[in-house]
Amino acid sequence: MSSGRRERVTISDIAARLGISKASVSYALNGRPGVSAETRERVLALADELGFHASSAAVALSAARTGTIGIVIARDPEVITAEGFYMRTLFGVEQYLNDADGQLLLRLTGERGEDLHVYRRWARQGRVDGFILYDEHDDDPRVPLLHSLQVPGVMVTSVAKEDGIGRLVTPESETVRVMLDHLKSLGHKRIAHLSGPTAYLHERVRVETMQREGEDRGLAVRHVEGTYEFASGEEATTRLLGLSARTRPTAIVAGNDIMATAALKAAADLGVGVPDQLSVLAWDDSVLCHTSRPRLTAMDHGLMEKARLATDLLYHLIDGGTQTHRVSPVGTLLVRDTTGPLAR
Amino acid sequence: MSSGRRERVTISDIAARLGISKASVSYALNGRPGVSAETRERVLALADELGFHASSAAVALSAARTGTIGIVIARDPEVITAEGFYMRTLFGVEQYLNDADGQLLLRLTGERGEDLHVYRRWARQGRVDGFILYDEHDDDPRVPLLHSLQVPGVMVTSVAKEDGIGRLVTPESETVRVMLDHLKSLGHKRIAHLSGPTAYLHERVRVETMQREGEDRGLAVRHVEGTYEFASGEEATTRLLGLSARTRPTAIVAGNDIMATAALKAAADLGVGVPDQLSVLAWDDSVLCHTSRPRLTAMDHGLMEKARLATDLLYHLIDGGTQTHRVSPVGTLLVRDTTGPLAR
Repeated sequence: MSSGRRERVTISDIAARLGISKASVSYALNGRPGVSAETRERVLALADELGFHASSAAVALSAARTGTIGIVIARDPEVITAEGFYMRTLFGVEQYLNDADGQLLLRLTGERGEDLHVYRRWARQGRVDGFILYDEHDDDPRVPLLHSLQVPGVMVTSVAKEDGIGRLVTPESETVRVMLDHLKSLGHKRIAHLSGPTAYLHERVRVETMQREGEDRGLAVRHVEGTYEFASGEEATTRLLGLSARTRPTAIVAGNDIMATAALKAAADLGVGVPDQLSVLAWDDSVLCHTSRPRLTAMDHGLMEKARLATDLLYHLIDGGTQTHRVSPVGTLLVRDTTGPLAR
Repeated sequence: MSSGRRERVTISDIAARLGISKASVSYALNGRPGVSAETRERVLALADELGFHASSAAVALSAARTGTIGIVIARDPEVITAEGFYMRTLFGVEQYLNDADGQLLLRLTGERGEDLHVYRRWARQGRVDGFILYDEHDDDPRVPLLHSLQVPGVMVTSVAKEDGIGRLVTPESETVRVMLDHLKSLGHKRIAHLSGPTAYLHERVRVETMQREGEDRGLAVRHVEGTYEFASGEEATTRLLGLSARTRPTAIVAGNDIMATAALKAAADLGVGVPDQLSVLAWDDSVLCHTSRPRLTAMDHGLMEKARLATDLLYHLIDGGTQTHRVSPVGTLLVRDTTGPLAR
């Protein structure tokens, strides 16, 4: 098959045939408002019939926007492909874009630092109207970068800073309350929080919140930092279960689904019954949580809905809106088989 | 933050400042060959310094290609977000694009049929140089569509047809041989093949291959069609284990990781020991397979490498190459804890 495009049919041809303006044809072809549904259908049908191809040039010249948003993810491929988090998130963004007939430009760079080049390049080339950003770090270099590139962005984050970019804020303290209240109601007093890397701001917010909310409830919350990987969850759990009976936690809150599954394995290997001798709770629900045996109690954060909210906020900013912060809804605790009272 | 772009700095300005041609500036900014690495660096540094923004128009006018490939996935969000398949595949494509500095335009439509609109729109708007296609169906409408749109495409498939589009072909018979030889060597004679939906061509090829290769080895292979979903794997396994001792399979080959996990659950619920009384093998390896208990024996198809090969073939076609077919490497069987000889 040849990749050469023959652009014999132009927007002017279509406009002339239908007796409408070139602008109307352009709006219809680009999925922009400004033409009736009927006109849009007529334009698309004729474009199909004539085998019309716009060049990107024509598209861009006829509309100030690309209709495209960018997401750049800088994470280890092994972790990212194992977790359900990003696939659910991408699907939520896509559901929004399906309705808006927008596009997603996606880059998985694997490593932090390499992503900055992509933001710069795409903004400079005018490929995207804005970005959704994940995994905020301290003094995140992407914030000043987006400012200097003059491109809107929405950070999906746990931190409600006023720094001029959009923020969809997860109310971590609400999540922590739901989880700790559940464990407290089952009689647990010593809880281990197996977090992800605290280089991520959201993990640090979670650690602080777990400490504070634990104290408020008279619970001893011990923090252990993990890497999100299976081996790290297994190793940490083995270590925790080796503590003396007086200090050993009776419940583990694991920072992701993979470390929670690893905690189950470590407990089983040591002959520690779940939930009779140890409760395990996963911060993020996923297929791992309901296919594991026993099935994992987990927080469902409504990731698709959250991604839709982030996309909606980004469009608001692209359209010149001034609201920069929104709060995402609190998740729901799915109580399955890994949390319960200690057996006497 | 304002989304308005001020394009006071032009390509001409940069060319004049550096004393080079506008074409060189354009090549450097667009990541196209034709300028030295040193010139490219000087251009990018100055562009940064001046806060230069190209419009998509300028990019497209200065290069025949968009540097962007498209992937449109029409699958149920619940299934697609649970399986590791697509995330690994996307990462493989991205690894290639990171090296080539290309872009991926991604759409997850959720439903078949809706995807055709996206192929048409993106091709007509000149947004992509070509497509990678998955999940081939009988008389797949995307093949004539790509022909009529005159855009190159690579189908990742199990079928080596000559129909003018690119094909990265999985050698299913090799995969089947590896799996059946393993089960036969363990003494299994009655095997159930729990496939995905046979509306997918690759699933039908697998069913036929399992039947043929089974016969060649004197194995009785019973086919049961599933949906890729957990419930379908659980239900099918329960039914199979309810057969009389003379006809009941002693091994199940499950068409994906989720149905394999479901088979483990169904066996456990019925008190059927794995692998003492039943072996289970998953067609696709994933995190589910090594976090399940017992850990699942599975085929590792090298999905990231496969995705890179598909992307490479697409670039070959975009560049005017004439080789349309390539064969992807055979996977590796990862023998874990769910396959073994029957206990006497």
